[in-house]
Amino acid sequence: MLFLVRMKVSVPPDADAHEVAGLQRDERDLSRRLQHEGIWRHLWRVVGRYENVSIFDVDSHEQLHEVLTSLPLWPYLDIATTPLAAHPSAIEEDAVPRVGRG
Amino acid sequence: MLFLVRMKVSVPPDADAHEVAGLQRDERDLSRRLQHEGIWRHLWRVVGRYENVSIFDVDSHEQLHEVLTSLPLWPYLDIATTPLAAHPSAIEEDAVPRVGRG
Amino acid sequence: MLFLVRMKVSVPPDADAHEVAGLQRDERDLSRRLQHEGIWRHLWRVVGRYENVSIFDVDSHEQLHEVLTSLPLWPYLDIATTPLAAHPSAIEEDAVPRVGRG
Amino acid sequence: MLFLVRMKVSVPPDADAHEVAGLQRDERDLSRRLQHEGIWRHLWRVVGRYENVSIFDVDSHEQLHEVLTSLPLWPYLDIATTPLAAHPSAIEEDAVPRVGRG
Amino acid sequence: MLFLVRMKVSVPPDADAHEVAGLQRDERDLSRRLQHEGIWRHLWRVVGRYENVSIFDVDSHEQLHEVLTSLPLWPYLDIATTPLAAHPSAIEEDAVPRVGRG
Amino acid sequence: MLFLVRMKVSVPPDADAHEVAGLQRDERDLSRRLQHEGIWRHLWRVVGRYENVSIFDVDSHEQLHEVLTSLPLWPYLDIATTPLAAHPSAIEEDAVPRVGRG
Amino acid sequence: MLFLVRMKVSVPPDADAHEVAGLQRDERDLSRRLQHEGIWRHLWRVVGRYENVSIFDVDSHEQLHEVLTSLPLWPYLDIATTPLAAHPSAIEEDAVPRVGRG
Amino acid sequence: MLFLVRMKVSVPPDADAHEVAGLQRDERDLSRRLQHEGIWRHLWRVVGRYENVSIFDVDSHEQLHEVLTSLPLWPYLDIATTPLAAHPSAIEEDAVPRVGRG
Amino acid sequence: MLFLVRMKVSVPPDADAHEVAGLQRDERDLSRRLQHEGIWRHLWRVVGRYENVSIFDVDSHEQLHEVLTSLPLWPYLDIATTPLAAHPSAIEEDAVPRVGRG
Amino acid sequence: MLFLVRMKVSVPPDADAHEVAGLQRDERDLSRRLQHEGIWRHLWRVVGRYENVSIFDVDSHEQLHEVLTSLPLWPYLDIATTPLAAHPSAIEEDAVPRVGRG
Repeated sequence: MLFLVRMKVSVPPDADAHEVAGLQRDERDLSRRLQHEGIWRHLWRVVGRYENVSIFDVDSHEQLHEVLTSLPLWPYLDIATTPLAAHPSAIEEDAVPRVGRG
Repeated sequence: MLFLVRMKVSVPPDADAHEVAGLQRDERDLSRRLQHEGIWRHLWRVVGRYENVSIFDVDSHEQLHEVLTSLPLWPYLDIATTPLAAHPSAIEEDAVPRVGRG
Repeated sequence: MLFLVRMKVSVPPDADAHEVAGLQRDERDLSRRLQHEGIWRHLWRVVGRYENVSIFDVDSHEQLHEVLTSLPLWPYLDIATTPLAAHPSAIEEDAVPRVGRG
Repeated sequence: MLFLVRMKVSVPPDADAHEVAGLQRDERDLSRRLQHEGIWRHLWRVVGRYENVSIFDVDSHEQLHEVLTSLPLWPYLDIATTPLAAHPSAIEEDAVPRVGRG
Repeated sequence: MLFLVRMKVSVPPDADAHEVAGLQRDERDLSRRLQHEGIWRHLWRVVGRYENVSIFDVDSHEQLHEVLTSLPLWPYLDIATTPLAAHPSAIEEDAVPRVGRG
Repeated sequence: MLFLVRMKVSVPPDADAHEVAGLQRDERDLSRRLQHEGIWRHLWRVVGRYENVSIFDVDSHEQLHEVLTSLPLWPYLDIATTPLAAHPSAIEEDAVPRVGRG
Repeated sequence: MLFLVRMKVSVPPDADAHEVAGLQRDERDLSRRLQHEGIWRHLWRVVGRYENVSIFDVDSHEQLHEVLTSLPLWPYLDIATTPLAAHPSAIEEDAVPRVGRG
Repeated sequence: MLFLVRMKVSVPPDADAHEVAGLQRDERDLSRRLQHEGIWRHLWRVVGRYENVSIFDVDSHEQLHEVLTSLPLWPYLDIATTPLAAHPSAIEEDAVPRVGRG
Repeated sequence: MLFLVRMKVSVPPDADAHEVAGLQRDERDLSRRLQHEGIWRHLWRVVGRYENVSIFDVDSHEQLHEVLTSLPLWPYLDIATTPLAAHPSAIEEDAVPRVGRG
Repeated sequence: MLFLVRMKVSVPPDADAHEVAGLQRDERDLSRRLQHEGIWRHLWRVVGRYENVSIFDVDSHEQLHEVLTSLPLWPYLDIATTPLAAHPSAIEEDAVPRVGRG
């Protein structure tokens, strides 16, 4: 099932720059792995802000919560989720909810 | 270039049901044509609301404005747009901005 | 999967009282049927308001959207949904997400 | 009487990790005890956030305030309460307010 | 138990003046009866607005909801309730919650 | 004249616990004195929050400002005031504004 | 005592133009009378809006409420009041609160 | 030309008390000078808050910006400005905009 | 002096289409005249909304108020103004405030 | 394509004054270069605030994001962007979107 997920990153100005850079590298790696697995379907940057707009595709609410809280930048994230359903006028493939991943 | 577009539909309860149904049919037709043309990239329903979340891909702000104001339900729409940029961690094809459509 | 759903009812003062009463009766019947089926898990009234707080348990976002838009009072409802996950400290049975209903 | 209670946890990034872990363990223990006593009726996690949605059943406002302020994470909690009443369409047992606990 | 209740009255400009005057008279009568019964403890006008601030003292959430929805102006009211508890520094009698009314 | 006053207390987590306890003791003492003098008419706790709802009765805006800024916890308070007037439907004694205190 | 009062006028587009013009004339007359009496101390227009910013000087909350609700445009006004006190750095005469008008 | 200016002061609790007292003294001196020059027309305290409501009369936006940013407490101020125009119903002298100061 | 002006147009769906079209034509004519006179410096459309962003350059608040209230669509406009000053880093000509228009 | 960009600067009071001054100098230099290149079309100060209103003209969302995140004060900026389109009533040259910069 699909979710619009919006993540706002708030790193305090006095955070350790080296440590933050490490978290950002790990975040990128994990993000790419999740994209390859089809869980993190889309990922865009909000122009002018340290914030992203994403589409996630998960099997359960528990899976989404687990994925989001495992993000390396989690302590600095303010996350809002919006549940999405297939739109009757949509023609695209990914609007169809997956019934199972097996 | 990509935009997150959120459209909330507010049809007044006393609107002519037959006329609204006609507008909705036209809206669906136009929406599908725009999806086939690659302008309306994604279209999802917000669960529990007469509201959608979409991704548009246009060549200019003028084109996006023209497309949105040509929607049959336009008089009943409250629209918010968020400009999106390619995310450095994104692997997917559609995160790459199109430089031209020619 | 579980959702906190909050529905605010806004019937315009000049609506036909008889027709509204009919919708309310139908709403109550459908609501009870959905409660018996285990889809509408909990239903409470917000004190002092024509508004309710509910917990829904559905198999997909599409199912939740279908259920909510089929409510007789739908044209008068403003609905907000919040996806819920099982809490690690919860002891109760219904915090466990259902993997299937079959 | 029943309350919807929403708790948002805001632990400052520079808090002592060990101390916070201790508070979280104590919070879980107290939470479970209160659930067994029937005071903390339901407890769910809000997906993607360090925030929960709960239903409390108490005998008085004083009892609810005492319970909430005794939570080990209290200094980090932002709490909003919504008083709930039995809904005339509800079929479930726990919509019935308890007249006494004796 | 005590509640801060704030009621905002929004009578549409085109409402029948005679009918509204009748509702206001009935509202005043019921309000005074509830004050004499000790349920509507305090009632003040918000300066410059058609809005009041009140303190209610009820035995249950169901009683408060029943009282508020029985107000003649109910269809025009937007009501917000805030549950109150006795304050440890309060000296006054009415800060003490009533355990029973019998 | 009467005011609804709402005070939210925000003590930073790293404040000196001993010093804060002292301020709270002084706050309670001053609060009780003001209640005995009839200036702080009512004082309630907002359930689940470090916040109170109060009714003040003062001779002038200057007096109210002086009283509020003299509270020991003043540096940590966020205060909102709402001017109240006697309500025509009120039966209670304290809805009558005091013309003088002499 | 002094109040900052902000009044927003919302005349519905379909209101009777002749009747509204009459109310506006009456409003102007009453406004001027109150200014001459020293009750409506200052009156300014908010640029680009049908809204004003005013300073009122009254003897009681009841007087202010009575004055505001007697304005001919009252049914179309949304009014917010802010109680003001003399500022210790102010040099001007009218910052001094009037103790009596006799 | 006239402006409603609202200044909210937020001195962090851990600021140097001596230094802040010095800034406050300087602020008062400058404020009085500006009042004598007719630039800072009115100055009131918002009851219960470290916040003021003022009326400024300046020759240009640049002058207003320069005056406000030169206030000793500027680093701690959150300022909102509202442009005001003469009101057609106003009788008072100071509602007339100054065309020049020379 | 310069102002950022944001105008949101809300024409009710049941307005007379012919009359609105006339107002829009008049609005365009007046808008162009004001642009030629240098008063309406810039005019842009907000993408996806019946709303514009403009820069006005006027000699006084009274002039700006007069110009805005003379717009044919005025009854349907919700207008917000933000006073602007020359920015010290700006290189452009029009950031310089005009001292007079004579 | 054009954007209204609003930047609010929040430098923490305890930031190193010398370092901030350096960033401000660099910011001014870069800002001027971008203005000369025609990317930063307009730049104004919001009166009374450490905040600016700007118009940017870019070839892509990626370019705008790159420009904004390269600003020396970026860590202290809260930025909101609004996409603008040419207005049919605009007469000015710069309302015409640039199709290319080559």
